[in-house]
Amino acid sequence: MKIYQLAPSPSARRVSIFLAEIGIDVERISIDIRGGENLSDSFQAKSQNGLIPVLELDDGTTISESIAICRYFDETHPSEHSLFGNTPLEKAQVEMWQRIVELKGLFVAMQAFRNLTGVYKDRETCVESWGEVSRQRLIAFLPSLDRRLSESRFVAGERFTVADITAYVMCNFMKNLDVNLDASLPHLQAWFETVSQRPSVRQ
Amino acid sequence: MKIYQLAPSPSARRVSIFLAEIGIDVERISIDIRGGENLSDSFQAKSQNGLIPVLELDDGTTISESIAICRYFDETHPSEHSLFGNTPLEKAQVEMWQRIVELKGLFVAMQAFRNLTGVYKDRETCVESWGEVSRQRLIAFLPSLDRRLSESRFVAGERFTVADITAYVMCNFMKNLDVNLDASLPHLQAWFETVSQRPSVRQ
Repeated sequence: MKIYQLAPSPSARRVSIFLAEIGIDVERISIDIRGGENLSDSFQAKSQNGLIPVLELDDGTTISESIAICRYFDETHPSEHSLFGNTPLEKAQVEMWQRIVELKGLFVAMQAFRNLTGVYKDRETCVESWGEVSRQRLIAFLPSLDRRLSESRFVAGERFTVADITAYVMCNFMKNLDVNLDASLPHLQAWFETVSQRPSVRQ
Repeated sequence: MKIYQLAPSPSARRVSIFLAEIGIDVERISIDIRGGENLSDSFQAKSQNGLIPVLELDDGTTISESIAICRYFDETHPSEHSLFGNTPLEKAQVEMWQRIVELKGLFVAMQAFRNLTGVYKDRETCVESWGEVSRQRLIAFLPSLDRRLSESRFVAGERFTVADITAYVMCNFMKNLDVNLDASLPHLQAWFETVSQRPSVRQ
């Protein structure tokens, strides 16, 4: 079993923190995305979405999409404190918050970054004004996450879940856009400090 | 238990098809999104992402995000043919394909529509050129889905899953962008015809 990834990318970070949280170590193979290694035929044959990370099982079956990879490990390593939740209501709430943080936060930040910097302009059309709109939408989302963390210890409830991993990776990534956790976001700031101390994150 | 929704919206369609597939009927309450009813304080207090659909349980607990709502019903109504998959590998593959179709298809189509038409320009900044880029990315995604359906009966494998619901709703929605399933996409076309005949979809 191995994971093809680019270690510093937000997607690889999500998987790495998840695996460290559940105490699993998997061989990693580095792929040079900026150099276009993921565009090669051999990599495209492994990755259903053309992106990293990709998990390759011992029989050659591959799984792409970081949350799908995390779910595979969650399902193969049952725990009484699953990072995807245990009861039906918990599972729905974790799914909801994971998606909210992803769709209104992390992915918006990534669209802002790609369109503002043109980092992949050799392979995609960038629209700078959309990058700016996305950056503003990210900034507008943060107070709602701060409010949520004023009423709940972690993003999806009283326990650390995959929604916190997505939110942590988002908070780190948005530094690239000069968006920071300032004093107007005290609950998000305090939560970020707490999460930053977890061994899975400090590794 | 009730669901707040706007029946013709892609998100409400996803939930409605899912519930029909598993044979559950839930009271629906119509929310006038274009008129801004979802922006009211009373609705915002129910919806964690400010959007529809929202599931409200009998104890007042609410769940937003259509896939989170579907997962709640999947978990509370276990089946030997779960629409989210049964084995760990199936669950990962359904999650992967659901996300690929959503992130490279449905959401791209929705961004194209909102930015090209300005339907919500009273509440969001639209960037027409991003709408056009998104429309082109949607068109560029379809051949990969067609290839997938040349090797697999349904999107995530040999059984109908939530990934097919997302793909079906995407194929319907993209008509609004004058993007159609033409003869260059024979497998996607054939799959669409098959899925269109399902009672859950024809309802």
